[in-house]
Amino acid sequence: MERLKGFRDIFPEDAEPRKKIFRVAEEMSEKFDFSKIEFPSVEYLDLYRLKSGEELVGQTFSFVDRGDREVALTPEATPTVVRMLTSRKDLQMPVKWYSFQRYWRYEEPQAGRTREFQQYNADIFGIDSKEADSEVIGLACMILDELGLAGKYVMKLNSREFMETLLHELGVFDLEAAYSSLDKLKKTGRENTIAELEKSGVKKENAERILDLVENGYSPDGFPTESFSFLGNEVKKLERLIETGKLVSLYSKSDVVIDLSIVRGLTYYTGVVFEAYDTTGTFRSILGGGRYDRLASLMSDAEIPAVGFGMGDVIIEMLLKQSGLLQSEKQNRSVFICYSSEESYNILVSIGIELRKQGYRTSLSMSAKSLSSQLRQASKRGFRFAAIVGERELKAGTVTIKDLDSGIQQEVQVKQLSDFDSIFR
Amino acid sequence: MERLKGFRDIFPEDAEPRKKIFRVAEEMSEKFDFSKIEFPSVEYLDLYRLKSGEELVGQTFSFVDRGDREVALTPEATPTVVRMLTSRKDLQMPVKWYSFQRYWRYEEPQAGRTREFQQYNADIFGIDSKEADSEVIGLACMILDELGLAGKYVMKLNSREFMETLLHELGVFDLEAAYSSLDKLKKTGRENTIAELEKSGVKKENAERILDLVENGYSPDGFPTESFSFLGNEVKKLERLIETGKLVSLYSKSDVVIDLSIVRGLTYYTGVVFEAYDTTGTFRSILGGGRYDRLASLMSDAEIPAVGFGMGDVIIEMLLKQSGLLQSEKQNRSVFICYSSEESYNILVSIGIELRKQGYRTSLSMSAKSLSSQLRQASKRGFRFAAIVGERELKAGTVTIKDLDSGIQQEVQVKQLSDFDSIFR
Repeated sequence: MERLKGFRDIFPEDAEPRKKIFRVAEEMSEKFDFSKIEFPSVEYLDLYRLKSGEELVGQTFSFVDRGDREVALTPEATPTVVRMLTSRKDLQMPVKWYSFQRYWRYEEPQAGRTREFQQYNADIFGIDSKEADSEVIGLACMILDELGLAGKYVMKLNSREFMETLLHELGVFDLEAAYSSLDKLKKTGRENTIAELEKSGVKKENAERILDLVENGYSPDGFPTESFSFLGNEVKKLERLIETGKLVSLYSKSDVVIDLSIVRGLTYYTGVVFEAYDTTGTFRSILGGGRYDRLASLMSDAEIPAVGFGMGDVIIEMLLKQSGLLQSEKQNRSVFICYSSEESYNILVSIGIELRKQGYRTSLSMSAKSLSSQLRQASKRGFRFAAIVGERELKAGTVTIKDLDSGIQQEVQVKQLSDFDSIFR
Repeated sequence: MERLKGFRDIFPEDAEPRKKIFRVAEEMSEKFDFSKIEFPSVEYLDLYRLKSGEELVGQTFSFVDRGDREVALTPEATPTVVRMLTSRKDLQMPVKWYSFQRYWRYEEPQAGRTREFQQYNADIFGIDSKEADSEVIGLACMILDELGLAGKYVMKLNSREFMETLLHELGVFDLEAAYSSLDKLKKTGRENTIAELEKSGVKKENAERILDLVENGYSPDGFPTESFSFLGNEVKKLERLIETGKLVSLYSKSDVVIDLSIVRGLTYYTGVVFEAYDTTGTFRSILGGGRYDRLASLMSDAEIPAVGFGMGDVIIEMLLKQSGLLQSEKQNRSVFICYSSEESYNILVSIGIELRKQGYRTSLSMSAKSLSSQLRQASKRGFRFAAIVGERELKAGTVTIKDLDSGIQQEVQVKQLSDFDSIFR
């Protein structure tokens, strides 16, 4: 019996350290006053037809269910979250939601890309402002910092609103084609990008000018606004981006960069767009998002500004592993309880209940056979302490506690276990 | 745009309190030294054909994927967990794993039954003993107790190994039919069950005798073993069940009952089976599981004894709600930061970062317009404190902190916020 291609079995050696990713994202969301939502993993396929563009629809796990409905395994969060938002008329704006769900895409599996993945998402609805933009991007930064990645990533920002103006001014009419060319710039290089832009109808001199303007990233404080003065009054759109970048810098311990080549694939963005990359350039983007103010009105009669991002589990896990930040921590509060005769098992159960109440990870031996092999098992499995109920202890009503790190042991009364911390103090 | 029938949108008012269920199950698993695993939500349909019986296969969300594979959304954990287990030759037994995943069944939705649900699962592999049985069932009890349900549920135990002997002795040849009849006993009553047993070929007097023997539950200490002396030596199988029940009683603050009418639907159980019910009898079983020693050998050439259980999210959530145990807790460590001019926003961001570092749930106001409406918003959203950066505070380099419960307020220096707890001490 085999696993499906592109799907992962995650055994404890990976699943246990991975819990850190979910825990940090959840705790930071709460501190930022985002509230959790949960939603279906299956939706009508039409939900994606409406807004995601054919590329994504072509990559869905879609099928016809037993009730003859055309459905899809959710490929991304946003359409569902907007569906939920617009289904409720009683919500007080701003709404700040986060979620942690699984998604599926039928793409060719490769390093960093699986057909099933988990993704953290966070959005603020109801406010169109640089403050809301910066809060969402700030949350993203603080999650990465809290995971230990401060200084190991760059947060890159751009504005689709500004890019639209800039590209129109420079003779670009097929915006989607231009975004798609710029999106690949880092991979394909300047010359190929210019060639591609020309192919989509941009004059060579304009294409070169575009590349001159977008090729380099700048810190929000050192951004060369003057290079864009030819845009006249429209430069204001750039100012909002720069102001957002400055606010994000307050949150982040890593570099924040205005990078006009960051445009994001999805068609529905209307304002700020952002992506975080590892500084070594090894991986695809760690997370990404942006402002999408027109999506709610596409799906309902409500106009609801929105800004948010998603962070998949695959790249962040690879990056944390590579950085040595995803190791199992030594469990110092852990006890393995050994015994030498069946009749003491009741005592083991009672000790287990007591130690777990005190927060200890506690394992009862599953065989009374050899005390020394039980102790070896305790060491091998990384327990800090062994509690031994042997023949002598059973008669005397005692337990021997052994610190497996130091080898020091003490025989104590069972009732002393009600404050285990104190035994080796 | 609609949600699919049988699927749930879970908004913050439910999602936030629900986190308690996942947190308690995860923490208790860790204290019992179970390790987390994660696995695919999609498997080859054949994985379920092999062992779950046609009923379950008929209820799966199955489809043919773009690669022409016959696949299914996972309807239960066990086949996948056993697939993972048998794919690794290097695992040291016993293996203790837990998981928290989504599952799907194409059934008619009703109260307490959705087409998509989340389920906690825990299993011990590699040991066939009453100690392992009791540890798994004890874990189930302690999760329920920790959720606040002590005394509000009954843990009911039986043994399929014993039932097989008993039913054979009493002239039952179609075991599956008999299990299916007994499974419905509580719903359909004695007379219907006897009629059903007769229909499947059991003599009336035997059917009545079976009902006499299984109709009542007993505590492990008061079980009438003598009523089964006609089984001779086979009564030993009953003794293991009773001993398991006694061990489980050590873990549980609720009643533990030997109930021979608990047989469980799935065909693959070979030893102890158990289900927890709320004492008011309002709901279907809260959780259930059992021993399934032959499953690994069906799927591989390994023989691996196994015992485990699953707890879905739907019934436990309904029960906790009904018991008033799933309310949002008042967040006493929460601060809403208000301001009255755009230029103070940088200060808000810094205060926010500082307070979040101290673990406070902290929200920055998204509009500088009216301080009094910002304060109303803070109260309405349940914040305990407001931090106000108004005109005066901005000039003075101070912040006014208001306890929204008592109405008491204090103006403090910004740097005093580095120990927020101390301000109202």
